[in-house]
Amino acid sequence: MIRISSAFDSGNITVLDAARADDIRLAINRDSQSHFFQWFHFRVTGARDCECVMRIVNAGEAGFPRGWEDYRAVASIDRKTWARVPTEYREGVLTIRHRPATDAVHYAYFAPYSLERHDDLVARCQASEGVRLLVPGTSAQGRPIDVLRFGEPGDGVVPVWVIARQHPGETMAEWFMEGLLDRLLDCGDKAAAALRGAVVLYAVPNMNPDGSVLGNLRVNWRGANLNREWEDPSPDRSPEVHHVRELMHRTGVDLCLDVHGDEGLPYAFIVGLDGIAEASAAQRELVSGFRDGLARLNPDFQTRHGYPVARPGQGNTTTCTGYLGKYLGAASMTLEMPFKDAANAPDAVYGWSPERSSALGRSTVEALLMVLPDLQALRRKGS
Amino acid sequence: MIRISSAFDSGNITVLDAARADDIRLAINRDSQSHFFQWFHFRVTGARDCECVMRIVNAGEAGFPRGWEDYRAVASIDRKTWARVPTEYREGVLTIRHRPATDAVHYAYFAPYSLERHDDLVARCQASEGVRLLVPGTSAQGRPIDVLRFGEPGDGVVPVWVIARQHPGETMAEWFMEGLLDRLLDCGDKAAAALRGAVVLYAVPNMNPDGSVLGNLRVNWRGANLNREWEDPSPDRSPEVHHVRELMHRTGVDLCLDVHGDEGLPYAFIVGLDGIAEASAAQRELVSGFRDGLARLNPDFQTRHGYPVARPGQGNTTTCTGYLGKYLGAASMTLEMPFKDAANAPDAVYGWSPERSSALGRSTVEALLMVLPDLQALRRKGS
Amino acid sequence: MIRISSAFDSGNITVLDAARADDIRLAINRDSQSHFFQWFHFRVTGARDCECVMRIVNAGEAGFPRGWEDYRAVASIDRKTWARVPTEYREGVLTIRHRPATDAVHYAYFAPYSLERHDDLVARCQASEGVRLLVPGTSAQGRPIDVLRFGEPGDGVVPVWVIARQHPGETMAEWFMEGLLDRLLDCGDKAAAALRGAVVLYAVPNMNPDGSVLGNLRVNWRGANLNREWEDPSPDRSPEVHHVRELMHRTGVDLCLDVHGDEGLPYAFIVGLDGIAEASAAQRELVSGFRDGLARLNPDFQTRHGYPVARPGQGNTTTCTGYLGKYLGAASMTLEMPFKDAANAPDAVYGWSPERSSALGRSTVEALLMVLPDLQALRRKGS
Amino acid sequence: MIRISSAFDSGNITVLDAARADDIRLAINRDSQSHFFQWFHFRVTGARDCECVMRIVNAGEAGFPRGWEDYRAVASIDRKTWARVPTEYREGVLTIRHRPATDAVHYAYFAPYSLERHDDLVARCQASEGVRLLVPGTSAQGRPIDVLRFGEPGDGVVPVWVIARQHPGETMAEWFMEGLLDRLLDCGDKAAAALRGAVVLYAVPNMNPDGSVLGNLRVNWRGANLNREWEDPSPDRSPEVHHVRELMHRTGVDLCLDVHGDEGLPYAFIVGLDGIAEASAAQRELVSGFRDGLARLNPDFQTRHGYPVARPGQGNTTTCTGYLGKYLGAASMTLEMPFKDAANAPDAVYGWSPERSSALGRSTVEALLMVLPDLQALRRKGS
Repeated sequence: MIRISSAFDSGNITVLDAARADDIRLAINRDSQSHFFQWFHFRVTGARDCECVMRIVNAGEAGFPRGWEDYRAVASIDRKTWARVPTEYREGVLTIRHRPATDAVHYAYFAPYSLERHDDLVARCQASEGVRLLVPGTSAQGRPIDVLRFGEPGDGVVPVWVIARQHPGETMAEWFMEGLLDRLLDCGDKAAAALRGAVVLYAVPNMNPDGSVLGNLRVNWRGANLNREWEDPSPDRSPEVHHVRELMHRTGVDLCLDVHGDEGLPYAFIVGLDGIAEASAAQRELVSGFRDGLARLNPDFQTRHGYPVARPGQGNTTTCTGYLGKYLGAASMTLEMPFKDAANAPDAVYGWSPERSSALGRSTVEALLMVLPDLQALRRKGS
Repeated sequence: MIRISSAFDSGNITVLDAARADDIRLAINRDSQSHFFQWFHFRVTGARDCECVMRIVNAGEAGFPRGWEDYRAVASIDRKTWARVPTEYREGVLTIRHRPATDAVHYAYFAPYSLERHDDLVARCQASEGVRLLVPGTSAQGRPIDVLRFGEPGDGVVPVWVIARQHPGETMAEWFMEGLLDRLLDCGDKAAAALRGAVVLYAVPNMNPDGSVLGNLRVNWRGANLNREWEDPSPDRSPEVHHVRELMHRTGVDLCLDVHGDEGLPYAFIVGLDGIAEASAAQRELVSGFRDGLARLNPDFQTRHGYPVARPGQGNTTTCTGYLGKYLGAASMTLEMPFKDAANAPDAVYGWSPERSSALGRSTVEALLMVLPDLQALRRKGS
Repeated sequence: MIRISSAFDSGNITVLDAARADDIRLAINRDSQSHFFQWFHFRVTGARDCECVMRIVNAGEAGFPRGWEDYRAVASIDRKTWARVPTEYREGVLTIRHRPATDAVHYAYFAPYSLERHDDLVARCQASEGVRLLVPGTSAQGRPIDVLRFGEPGDGVVPVWVIARQHPGETMAEWFMEGLLDRLLDCGDKAAAALRGAVVLYAVPNMNPDGSVLGNLRVNWRGANLNREWEDPSPDRSPEVHHVRELMHRTGVDLCLDVHGDEGLPYAFIVGLDGIAEASAAQRELVSGFRDGLARLNPDFQTRHGYPVARPGQGNTTTCTGYLGKYLGAASMTLEMPFKDAANAPDAVYGWSPERSSALGRSTVEALLMVLPDLQALRRKGS
Repeated sequence: MIRISSAFDSGNITVLDAARADDIRLAINRDSQSHFFQWFHFRVTGARDCECVMRIVNAGEAGFPRGWEDYRAVASIDRKTWARVPTEYREGVLTIRHRPATDAVHYAYFAPYSLERHDDLVARCQASEGVRLLVPGTSAQGRPIDVLRFGEPGDGVVPVWVIARQHPGETMAEWFMEGLLDRLLDCGDKAAAALRGAVVLYAVPNMNPDGSVLGNLRVNWRGANLNREWEDPSPDRSPEVHHVRELMHRTGVDLCLDVHGDEGLPYAFIVGLDGIAEASAAQRELVSGFRDGLARLNPDFQTRHGYPVARPGQGNTTTCTGYLGKYLGAASMTLEMPFKDAANAPDAVYGWSPERSSALGRSTVEALLMVLPDLQALRRKGS
């Protein structure tokens, strides 16, 4: 007997019919109080050695239907390794075909990152010397917004922010954070030590804990897209942004990396301040320097493909990057990773993966060291 | 600003007042649809380097107030290591005193074992060769009841069952299971291999997933104490027992270990079939043999202290042990571990711990090997 | 260009001709000052992707030519994993055929165990609390004879000895010791803790360090077969036995396990006190109890095959086992592991291996616990 | 009874008197066929809980007596962690004071790196895909000179060489290599992957295996200081340089790092081509770029302190760096690490250590990536 379960962290599926393995029909639930949906995550048992055909029949109404093109779902038998499985999108239906070799298989839009894992990450970071946990406020459902601070603020110390998972279904963003943060904890890592000695780094591993648990792709529990709330966040509807933005104003932000996943493009890339008229040349050069350094250090990352460049003044200042670039003078940027694969460095088995996301997070240490003298110079000039 | 959060797996606390660190007042929420309560689990932030005095003001109404005597709560800064902290019970109030050295500390009745960790355990077991995952049914809230089977049933193969966490707050029972199961997965462990070659072992790491997530001590979502439901389980009110019991009838049970925690006694011990009139001498000898072997193999376990011996015919056949002993002729027994510490082998820092629970689970491999010839003889005779 | 090197710990080979990969001719060097030889160990480079045919032309004159029957040499590319390779013995020549997939391959009679690894083992043991390193004397070449003592001697404390590698080429004996000793070091291992609480265990991981480094099979630097020296060891010619035996006389020996490899038989087995007329029934029963327990705990070990049983009075009291059984009243025994494979539990890829040797060493902990009450009773009676 | 042993890899000491723990008198043996000496390594047993005073009475005649100033010996109880112990140099005598807390302690000039460990390193590297082991020749005593090649030579592929331990007692050089090489083996390390994709890297982890085993500081078995042999190496007296240099001529060398330890200076630094008149501006800029990048990436490394700058034309072309800079047009440089501590980043417990050496080796990956575009440009121009 086939059983499909999603009663766990970030589980999201409705079973329409699971009587036969070769004709399973499913639908993705909408994000809380929203018309968006695209994230799915469920466990199938009872189909060992059966050819499963799983049709997500409402895929065509998802937030980013183009995201399904060339997309392959991920599956895991041990909840550690997530490999790609044959997936096809046609006429509004996403069809996943898989023959489980064991009794239970988890399927998801991308490798999940649970709140338990988040809590473990936060706990081990804050347990480490020189790391503080700030909780500037709570989410709409009352979960703490965890902000980790590495190092002490002070004269000449550069405030750097890295935030992730404004869009909760973009789990690669928290895998990225885990890579970065675990590296910062490693006493034997001399590059990490050099960075920790020179900056104060604020990290928000998960801007949207409610949406993460609920299995949302894009919004918080109240239905707000947090990355459109930065100019005027509401304490009720977007408290996550409200609280973090307030803290940013207090700490200042010289450089900010807002980490995301992109449903459509098969590349890891950075979008900077192109459309933000108020951004200075120095801000722009810092973004370029960081981006070029990252491309030199990590072959998964590239600078050739990305979004069309916004025309000056056409940038969106309701996003984190736009807001910080305009109002706080930050070298702010949005880092995107693919849900699919990186076309410049394809991996037939895993596609883009948690491991690659973490590795990119780790590479940011050296990319930051490479622009550090410029950040320090800017700070001296600014003060 | 002090923030106390319990919006996570097995979180349980109500904050009455947290304005001052030295006068925090808390209450434990009742188990779902039940008058029982005793389990608590919460995170405190914002009290670094402050002397916290946390009073659980309704402790006197908890399920087992004698459990608070000589009890010390556990605390963790990294969610991995849980150490005991000064705790006092007086006039119905449990007072925990602690000075956090970091920004966030988790406190709990015993080291928690989350559903995420359960799902990981089940996934890695069933991903291993020779292991099957059976899902005989779902819990009251629709979560799968995961039954892992090691080995193949067959003529002369002894069916052994180990189940845990009928009472969801007795998390040491699932730590015990993790120790046992991970050992069975270890290809290089020759004792485990010997056992796997001779028995078919059915393991239920968590009989009560709903209660576990909900932060209950003793009952499932419907308020049922599962270990009083074995004679007449209800598909609605105690589906967890209903489904597992049905499967047991199909597989047969030669030996069953039902793993628990005891709120009161500071010992690890086994209760057997003393009060079950129908149990044969062979059943009783197997229980004794297993129990004595375990005591030889693991100094944390002992045979001197335990519950008063039930008089013949006074045994409770609504429990798993009593039921299986009476109706299925099993060498069935209940293994209890302390919430407090083991008085025969005290550990001032950790008390009884996840590590000791897992180690006891691992020792059961050899304890089973020592009674294996007797189990095999009984089976040959029975068939 | 093919290069064959043996200028390392336990290296032993003479290259007669290595001009062509498919016709390499080799000879094993004799043990120091002895006619024995059988151990070989060398590295081949420069034969990647070539079909190598390596002929040991003097194999027929080796110590145990029957050892070559059904024997397969071991090879390793990373010096960690040693797999069997096709080997044939015919008309006095041992031919190893192998096609290296990498540039360098090590070949050996059995997986080597270097003095560096020995020194690491001894160092980490003696660095652990409750462990002492005694050095009762030095080898013929001046190397220390390391004796590790776990626990404190005392009234009612049972003195147990385990010694290994009297014959230096029987490296499985030290892999066995590593398994046993590392387990004793593991604080979380409750069976090990139970054992350490009840006995004082003396371990000699390597009785013959000189022979080990020199690449000998059977003798020390002076050419002495140490396991024929126990009745009258010479401070000059067999100082290794001389010093250890003296210490044994001081500590007493209630049980002794002398660990060996057997060139001929494809089984792990124990030889006890059969031929030793002076051995008591209690000594013999302890040997049987230990042996039967070990067979229950570890499917690699068996009790069916072994040496022919010596007739009473025909036992050899110049061996460790015979000497201790006769003069010290010890339950002494010789544990043999195969160089080939265990016919009762064959492994086509690895044959008998370091991993299996270590696992057998680990299993001795429970086998000792199972006879512990008898050992304690004997001690009480004896004193 | 105190026993002092050095009968192991790189052991070096002569015991003059060890009758009393507080008056142990020792002498360092000279390097083979040489007047140099400074390396020592020995094990002391039998002095647990005794205040040991160990005097090296011939320290004043060592190769670099100034190396003893502010120097502290290293000691280890487990042969893994080597901590500094109180050491004083006065009137030609080096006095080490230590109270062993366990039965055995190893003492050394710096944490040893054995040939067994070398063989393990080489084996696991060459077992990895894309890595080749070349053995261009053997040492004076017949040990293979192992050259590992990462990547394939080809058009536009930059040949980079890293060599270590021309001076065998400078073991930090091989710890450095281990850090670098293990990083190159890590498939998940994206910076390493980027480097491996762009260069062919030749690594010689140990140029002087004979001297290493013999416990020499500075010379090979024949007494030759290899780093003075590059203009005219002798196949007999300095075959190690002879063979490697020949291979370098065949592969070409665009960049070479020759890794050393310095007895006197308490800094990690790089010496480049200052005195080599023939070196081009491009060669010099590459050295500067690499050196400055390394300083940015690793706070243990610095650019302020080092040897006095050689005047043009005064550079020594008998050294590896000088020779390659002059004759092969290489951006060649000598990297020095301290035997003592790094004064710019002092560590009271460990001083300079294997861990810091390895970490510096790992940082060279990014330092190479930073100069890679310049190396590639030079290559295009050169061809």
